[in-house]
Amino acid sequence: MSTAIKPKIETTLPNSRRIYIDGTQSGVRVPFREIEQNVTRNFDNSLVENPPVRVYDTSGPWGDPSIKGDVLEGLNELRREWIVGRGDVEEYQGRELRPIDDGYLTFAAADQARQKEKAQEKDRLENFPSLRRTPLRAKAGHCVTQMYYARKGIITPEMEFIAIRENLGRQGPTNFSLSTPRDSLLHQHKGVSFGASIPPYVTPEFVRDEVARGRAIIPANINHPESEPMIIGRNFLVKINANIGNSAVLSSIDDEVEKMRWSIKCGSDTVMDLSTGKNIHATREWILRNSPVPIGTVPIYQALEKVGGKAEELTWEIFRDTLIEQAEQGVDYFTIHAGVRLPYIPMTAKRTTGIVSRGGSILAKWCLAHHEESFLYTRFREVCEIMAAYDVSFSLGDGLRPGSIADANDEAQFAELETLGELTKIAWELDCQVMIEGPGHVPMHLIKENMDKQLETCQEAPFYTLGPLTTDIAPGYDHITSAIGAAMIGWYGTAMLCYVTPKEHLGLPNKKDVKDGVIAYKIAAHAADLAKGHPGAQYRDNALSKARFEFRWEDQFNLSLDPEVAREYHDETLPQEGAKLAHFCSMCGPHFCSMKITQDVREYAAQKEIDEAAALGVGMKEKAEEFVASGGEIYQAK
Amino acid sequence: MSTAIKPKIETTLPNSRRIYIDGTQSGVRVPFREIEQNVTRNFDNSLVENPPVRVYDTSGPWGDPSIKGDVLEGLNELRREWIVGRGDVEEYQGRELRPIDDGYLTFAAADQARQKEKAQEKDRLENFPSLRRTPLRAKAGHCVTQMYYARKGIITPEMEFIAIRENLGRQGPTNFSLSTPRDSLLHQHKGVSFGASIPPYVTPEFVRDEVARGRAIIPANINHPESEPMIIGRNFLVKINANIGNSAVLSSIDDEVEKMRWSIKCGSDTVMDLSTGKNIHATREWILRNSPVPIGTVPIYQALEKVGGKAEELTWEIFRDTLIEQAEQGVDYFTIHAGVRLPYIPMTAKRTTGIVSRGGSILAKWCLAHHEESFLYTRFREVCEIMAAYDVSFSLGDGLRPGSIADANDEAQFAELETLGELTKIAWELDCQVMIEGPGHVPMHLIKENMDKQLETCQEAPFYTLGPLTTDIAPGYDHITSAIGAAMIGWYGTAMLCYVTPKEHLGLPNKKDVKDGVIAYKIAAHAADLAKGHPGAQYRDNALSKARFEFRWEDQFNLSLDPEVAREYHDETLPQEGAKLAHFCSMCGPHFCSMKITQDVREYAAQKEIDEAAALGVGMKEKAEEFVASGGEIYQAK
Repeated sequence: MSTAIKPKIETTLPNSRRIYIDGTQSGVRVPFREIEQNVTRNFDNSLVENPPVRVYDTSGPWGDPSIKGDVLEGLNELRREWIVGRGDVEEYQGRELRPIDDGYLTFAAADQARQKEKAQEKDRLENFPSLRRTPLRAKAGHCVTQMYYARKGIITPEMEFIAIRENLGRQGPTNFSLSTPRDSLLHQHKGVSFGASIPPYVTPEFVRDEVARGRAIIPANINHPESEPMIIGRNFLVKINANIGNSAVLSSIDDEVEKMRWSIKCGSDTVMDLSTGKNIHATREWILRNSPVPIGTVPIYQALEKVGGKAEELTWEIFRDTLIEQAEQGVDYFTIHAGVRLPYIPMTAKRTTGIVSRGGSILAKWCLAHHEESFLYTRFREVCEIMAAYDVSFSLGDGLRPGSIADANDEAQFAELETLGELTKIAWELDCQVMIEGPGHVPMHLIKENMDKQLETCQEAPFYTLGPLTTDIAPGYDHITSAIGAAMIGWYGTAMLCYVTPKEHLGLPNKKDVKDGVIAYKIAAHAADLAKGHPGAQYRDNALSKARFEFRWEDQFNLSLDPEVAREYHDETLPQEGAKLAHFCSMCGPHFCSMKITQDVREYAAQKEIDEAAALGVGMKEKAEEFVASGGEIYQAK
Repeated sequence: MSTAIKPKIETTLPNSRRIYIDGTQSGVRVPFREIEQNVTRNFDNSLVENPPVRVYDTSGPWGDPSIKGDVLEGLNELRREWIVGRGDVEEYQGRELRPIDDGYLTFAAADQARQKEKAQEKDRLENFPSLRRTPLRAKAGHCVTQMYYARKGIITPEMEFIAIRENLGRQGPTNFSLSTPRDSLLHQHKGVSFGASIPPYVTPEFVRDEVARGRAIIPANINHPESEPMIIGRNFLVKINANIGNSAVLSSIDDEVEKMRWSIKCGSDTVMDLSTGKNIHATREWILRNSPVPIGTVPIYQALEKVGGKAEELTWEIFRDTLIEQAEQGVDYFTIHAGVRLPYIPMTAKRTTGIVSRGGSILAKWCLAHHEESFLYTRFREVCEIMAAYDVSFSLGDGLRPGSIADANDEAQFAELETLGELTKIAWELDCQVMIEGPGHVPMHLIKENMDKQLETCQEAPFYTLGPLTTDIAPGYDHITSAIGAAMIGWYGTAMLCYVTPKEHLGLPNKKDVKDGVIAYKIAAHAADLAKGHPGAQYRDNALSKARFEFRWEDQFNLSLDPEVAREYHDETLPQEGAKLAHFCSMCGPHFCSMKITQDVREYAAQKEIDEAAALGVGMKEKAEEFVASGGEIYQAK
C-alpha cells in the first residue's frame, strides 16, 4: 500500500533553491524560492553577474529538496506551538467518526467497498494512517480567531510570517536584499488601484490592522497546524484558489492528494476540496494532513451525501454535525450559502440558466420544499460560534451567481449580495473572518459594477470570485474566457481568484487541466498585481525580459511560470543544446534577429552621447561610415 | 505531386450548413454558417424547436461542403467581375519573376534546391501550377481604392457584401430572420463603447461612410479577387489576424497553405504571411490563390532576403520592386514601418528590451548605417501611389513597440505613433486605406492610454494591435497573457487583434498552436463585442447557455468555438453516447445537479405567480407540502 502513495510529483523547480527568512517571533521562518541566473556577456565580452530572483513559494515543505516528504506521515506541524502557546485552546475528545461521513451506512459496508476497489487496483485508501490527533477548540469564553487577536492589538506569529512573505523578504520598501541589486530591475510603473491602500512595505502591524478591520483574512484553522500562513485581502498580493475533489463518477483519494500537491507546485495559494460521493471524510483527511496551504470546503455537499442526496431532508442538526466534523479535521474556510433567501429564489425563474451554484441549488430546493428560510440563514449566529471556536473563515457563498452572460448582474444576484453584506456584519460582531464569493459569468463591461457593489455592500470584506467568464461560447477554453475576467476584477480589487479549468462545464479536470487552470490564474493574478502597482511585482517581469533580450534562454525558461513547458516549446523547434546558447531564435533564424540589431542601437546611442558631450565637431555621418566599415555588427570578438 | 497537396483539413463543422444571402448587386452572395439545434424537451414532455444559430463564417469556399476545393486550382474569383466592371483597371505585362524573389541567385539554383528537397520528401513545391493571371492595376489617372469609391459616394459590391455579413443577414435591427425567433435569445446587455458609433443595423451606406472617413478599411487588392470582402473598423465586429509563414529554420509551402486553411476554419478574419528565408514568393502565391480572407505581409522581410540579410544594403529600388511584386500577386495589406525615424532610435537605447519588432530593427539598422531617415519615410508618397494603384491597404507598423512591460508607453513608442498619425493624413490625401499597428507588452492599467492616444493621433483610423501581453512572466502561455490585453483593448476600440500563439518568444507555431492562438483571440474579440454591446453579439452566448441549461450536450458542443475539443473533453469523463443525452453531468453525478434543481424553481415560481394572481386564499405552505408529496422532483413522466 505505501508504495502506491509515495509522492509522484517532483515538486522542486529547475535552477531554484529554497531559502528561509526568519522573523522575530519563535518559529517564524518564511520559505521562498530563489531562481539562480546565468551571467550576462557584454559587448566587450566582459561578464556581469545577475542576481537570483526571489519568488513567493506556495509549495511548502514539498518544495524543499532537503525535506523527504512522505504522504503517509503528513507534514510537520509548523503552527502547533503558536496555537497551543496562546493558552486559549483545549484538546478534547472529538466527534466520533461515523460510516456516513464517508457515505456508507456501516463501517462494514465501507470496508467491503474499499476492499472491492483495492481488488480492482484502484488505489483507493483507508483512513489516514498516521497519528490521529485529538482536536483542539477554543476554551469556553475564549475566541481564537486571527480577527479577535488583531482587534486586541496582538501581532500573532501568523501575521509576522505573512508580512515577510508579502514583502518577498525585502528589508524595506526598495530593498530586495539581493546580492547585487540592479536599478533597471527595480523600475516599475505606477499602478492604478481604484482606492486600494497598498503600502510600499508590509509591516506586521499593517497585517494586523487589515485583519482587524475585516479587509483581509488569514484562513488558519487551529486544527490545521501544517499550514503556512497566507493572507487574502485587497491590499496584498492577489491570490488564487484551485478546486479539486472526487465525485460520484470519478477519481480516487490518491488522485486528489496528488492534485493538491500539483496545484501548489504550480502556485495555488489555497485549495478547495469539493469532493462529493463516497470517501469524503477520508479524502479530506489525506489532503489536510499533507497541505501547506489553507483548505476550503463546501460543507453542504457532505451534509447532502449524509441524507442520500435528498436536499429537502437536510436538517440543521446534520449540517451542524458536518461543520464540527470538518472543523475538527482542520478545514480553513467554509463556503456557506447563507444568502440564498426564500424571497430571492423566484427572481431566478426567468433566468437563462437559473441557479448554477451547486450549494445554491441545494438550498433553493430545501427552501422550496419547506417554504422557509434556510437554517444557514436562521441559524447564522450559531454557525458563527462554531467557526469562531476553530477559527474557520467564512467564504460567504454566492448561491445565486449568474451562470451565463445573460444573467449577469441581475436582481437575484445583487439581492443575495445585500444579504451577504448583512451577514458579514453579524460574523464580524463575533470576530469571525469573512470573505465574499462572487460570479460567475459576466461580460467585461459589467465586471466593475460587481466589485464596486461588493466593496460597498460588504464593507471591504475580501472578494473571492470565480473568473468571471467573459463569454459563454468557448467550452473547452473557459480557463481563458475567465482569465480575462479574473485579471480585470483582480485589478479592480478582488483579493482571491478561484480558477476555472479547460474542463469547466464539460468534465472533471485531470492533472493537465489543473495545471492549465492554475497557470492561467497565476497570469491573471500577476497581471492584476502589475496593474495595481503592487510593490516589487514587476521585478520578475523585468528580470525575465532582460534574460530574453540577452538570449539567456535557460534563465528565460527558469524565470517563467512554467519552466517545463517553456523549455519544451523552445526545444520543439530547436532541440539542440547549442540553440539555447545561440544569439538568435527559431522565429527569425540566424540572419535576422531584432534583438541582435537592437544591441547596435545601444552602441550607437552610447557613442552619440559621448560624441554630443565631447566634440560637437565630429560629424555623425562619419560615425555612421565607421559603423558600416566595422561590419555593422557587434560580437566582433567572436 | 498533386496528392501531396490535396486539402488535409476537413473545413466543415459539425451539424452546420452553409447558407448564402444575396444582396442587390450582382454577385453579392454572402456566406454564413448555420448551426442546427435539437429540440427542447419541456417539463410536460412537450417538444419545442430551437432555431438554427447563424454565425459569421471566415472559411470561404473551403467551408462549403458542396464545393470540391482543390489547392492546385485555387479558389473561384468572386470579385473579378466587380473589379473589371468598374472600368478603371487595366491588365498589363507584370513584373517578371526573378530567382531572387524566392531567395536564389539563378533559376537553376532554385530548381536544384527544390529537387533536393523533393528527394528528401519534404513536399516543398514549385510555382503555383494553375493559370498565371496577368496582373491588374489602376489605369493612368484612376484610383481604385475602396476609400476613393466611398468618398465619391459609390457603394461598391464589396460594401454591400460587408453590410450583410456584419448583420449576420438580419433583415433589420431586431430581426434575426430565423425560423422561430425566441425573445429570450435576443436579450442583450447594453454595452459600453467608449465613444464608438455602433449602429443597431449596418447599412451599405454606413459601410461607405465609415470607409470614406477613414474609420474603417476594406483590405481588397484588385489582384486578390478570391477574397470575400470584410471590414476592419471600430464600429464593426472586432476582427482577428493569424500570422503564419515559414522561416529559414523550418516549415514548407505545403505547411503554410494548410495553416492558412486551418486558421480560417478556426475563425481568423485575415492572415499575415510572415515568411522569411527561401521560397517567399512561391509560398505567398500558393496562399493567395487559396485564401478567401485578406492576406497581409511585411514587404521589408522579402526585400531583406534579396540583399542577403544585410539591412544596410537595402535600397528604395529593391523595396519598391518588392512592393510591386507583392501588389501584383494580390497582397491585401502591407505593414510599412515608416514611423521609425532616426531621432527616435536612440530613445530605445535605455529600454529593457530595445527594439523587438523585426521590421523596426531592420529599419533602425539601416538608419544607423546611413545616418538618414529611411526611404519608407522619405518616399512615403511614392509608396502611397503604388498602394493606391492596386488598393493595397496600409498597416502602418509600430517598429518601436514595447517588447516588455518595463518599456510600455514610453517616449519612443508614442513618438512613433505621432509620426504614424502624420503619415495617415498623407495616405488619406491619396485615398489610401490605413490602419495603425499597436503594441506589444503593456500592463492592464496602461492599455487604455494606448487606445486613447491612437484615436486622437490617428484621427480614428482603425487600430490593429498585437495582444497586448499583460505580463512577461509566462512564456508558453502568451496566448493567455495577451488574450487578456486583447479583450480589453478590443473593448476600448481596437478594430483588429493580431493573435499570439503559445509559442511566442519560443518557437514557430505548429497547427495546434495556430488553433490555440486563433481560439484565444476569437474569445477576446467576442468578449469585446459583448462589452461594446455590438447588436446581436450575445445571441450565440444565449443559445449556448440555453442548450447547456437544458442538457442539450450536442448543441452545446456544436455552438462552441471549438466543437471538437468541447466534445473530446466531455467524453474523457463520460464517453458513453448515452451520457450526452443524460440530464446530469460528470461534474456532479446523477444525484446532484444544480441545473436540474433549478427547473423546480421555475415550476415553483410559475405556480406562485398563478397562485398570487388567482387566489390569495391559497397558502404557500400548502403549496410546499404538495411539492414534497409529489416527490419534489420533476420529470415524473419518465
